[in-house]
Amino acid sequence: MGAAPVSNVLLFGGGAVGAIAALNIEAGKLGQVTAVLRSNYETVKHRGYNIESIDHGRVNAWRPSSVVKKVPSIEAETAEPFDYIITSTKNLMDVEPMLPDLIAPAVTPGHTVIVMIQNRLNIERAMFEKFPQNIVLSGVSMIDSHEVEPGDIYHEDHDILYLGAFHNPNFQTDEQEIAAARHFIKMYGAAGKTKVHFSEDVPWSRWRKLIFNAVLNPICAITQLDSARARLSGTLIEGIARPAMQEVYDTAKRLGHDLPENIIDTMINLDPMDLYLKPSMQVDLEKGNLMEVEYLVGEPLREAEKVGIPTPYLRAMYEMIKAVQWRLKEAKGLVDVPPKRVQ
Amino acid sequence: MGAAPVSNVLLFGGGAVGAIAALNIEAGKLGQVTAVLRSNYETVKHRGYNIESIDHGRVNAWRPSSVVKKVPSIEAETAEPFDYIITSTKNLMDVEPMLPDLIAPAVTPGHTVIVMIQNRLNIERAMFEKFPQNIVLSGVSMIDSHEVEPGDIYHEDHDILYLGAFHNPNFQTDEQEIAAARHFIKMYGAAGKTKVHFSEDVPWSRWRKLIFNAVLNPICAITQLDSARARLSGTLIEGIARPAMQEVYDTAKRLGHDLPENIIDTMINLDPMDLYLKPSMQVDLEKGNLMEVEYLVGEPLREAEKVGIPTPYLRAMYEMIKAVQWRLKEAKGLVDVPPKRVQ
Repeated sequence: MGAAPVSNVLLFGGGAVGAIAALNIEAGKLGQVTAVLRSNYETVKHRGYNIESIDHGRVNAWRPSSVVKKVPSIEAETAEPFDYIITSTKNLMDVEPMLPDLIAPAVTPGHTVIVMIQNRLNIERAMFEKFPQNIVLSGVSMIDSHEVEPGDIYHEDHDILYLGAFHNPNFQTDEQEIAAARHFIKMYGAAGKTKVHFSEDVPWSRWRKLIFNAVLNPICAITQLDSARARLSGTLIEGIARPAMQEVYDTAKRLGHDLPENIIDTMINLDPMDLYLKPSMQVDLEKGNLMEVEYLVGEPLREAEKVGIPTPYLRAMYEMIKAVQWRLKEAKGLVDVPPKRVQ
Repeated sequence: MGAAPVSNVLLFGGGAVGAIAALNIEAGKLGQVTAVLRSNYETVKHRGYNIESIDHGRVNAWRPSSVVKKVPSIEAETAEPFDYIITSTKNLMDVEPMLPDLIAPAVTPGHTVIVMIQNRLNIERAMFEKFPQNIVLSGVSMIDSHEVEPGDIYHEDHDILYLGAFHNPNFQTDEQEIAAARHFIKMYGAAGKTKVHFSEDVPWSRWRKLIFNAVLNPICAITQLDSARARLSGTLIEGIARPAMQEVYDTAKRLGHDLPENIIDTMINLDPMDLYLKPSMQVDLEKGNLMEVEYLVGEPLREAEKVGIPTPYLRAMYEMIKAVQWRLKEAKGLVDVPPKRVQ
């Protein structure tokens, strides 16, 4: 558990969120990062990242300490163990294999702290199953950062990270987990550029973010209006965003997560009006990439249904965004459409 | 009232619906049509319509008897009175001035029968106000016809017209009105290419069509899936189309229009699967044209709210399609968007 002055960090997923995480950590000098890259490997390896960041300014040709193509195997190679593994891949239920298997070669049992900066609910279960002796932290990032081209990161609004520990059911107490979270926060924020909050209640922060992600994120993708235009366009927010957010709020409450009363207004007004920010699904759609439909919208809907909250607005949003996802899949040749009748 | 063997017909709105109406009437030889054209005037005047029709086959360089640019004035010109004026313009609440004023120069009080082949509810009110001594007929067309380029009409699925009379509150009985409707049906169907049904209950046929138009029409535009793909894509139909259609059904029932029990299934399966037909709003959206949002979705929603039917699904559809319309308006420079902050 990262007691050394400089922690050895493996980053799995070096896109918009991961690249800024790596930059934060290396800028603070308390960690050195090995980044496992996929789609942007060639670009970053040879040219580095080009980052335009509201927190770090213009950073050209920047590389983490090490850039690799596949997860290093601790057993086969004679490397130092990793103190932290950060996972910051997109959650795409349909197309991605399971994360625990992917990072397994780099995990030292009982030592490596796994930090999941990912949006999904209940992501920790599979991790604890695979690594019963490891600490797993939860990062909920409110970052507006996009990879506009492979290796080109555009980070438009300030990063706010809620970091806390998932409670490993195999541990008696959570003291070790909380200490690991506090150490990671120190390392992540050491450069003084990022707000990192310790989150005492991880599900609470996840549900808090879902107020935005299960509602405004799909609404912006479906209507192809950014979060400012969604507010400018008329009655979209009051007509459906607010009632849909209320459904998420009620579900969180029913599950025991009491969010603050003004959270819906906070989330409606989260993005500055004059930046015209596009939530992640809209960015994915415009790039022709599959969106995190199931993790951001489908799962909270299913949780709501399980606890008996009526969800017509979430259901409407879910069906629409799923239909748009189907269109993306058709464009990628992932679904079959029978031929048109020749008249 | 068209007692002459060949009726004198003015067509106002010669797009996808109007062009096929004109062709039906002239093919039947019981009417001759003067078409008032706007966006396609130059094309049709000089080259004629090119029509690919499932009912009429390939018809090239076809013109109605007369093609004009503005509504002829009966008083100023020494023309024969018009027996019928067909209005088949798109209903675009925001941008179009009122129809009665536009056709007024060609209306002979107490003589001209006005036939509104338009989707909107309550369209007859303004007509009766302006022309208290005239008969107004209601045409509800289930046509799949699109103007792909100005003057190029692609008519993909068989035309079914429900034709009946709005009851003019200034008339004691509706005998005259029904006779006018029956005469128009004879003229419209004389070529034997089109199914025209006499509709005893005009609001009933309008609500019947709204089961499709208030729901599948916006869903296809919002998701950009045609009516077959909307059914292929997964749970879109059962998840939101059916419950939204139920809201329209319940509203019609509350207003006294008992639609058949299987109407929802009929409307879901209305379009043949293997033609991949695009409803009108989707076609408009793809052409960058404004869509009939208020008349097809907003009005039934407001009628539902007036009579106390809960409408979360219709509301979700309405807010989404209105947001998409706003995007079209921005593209046309019809709305102001403040500038983006320069960082």
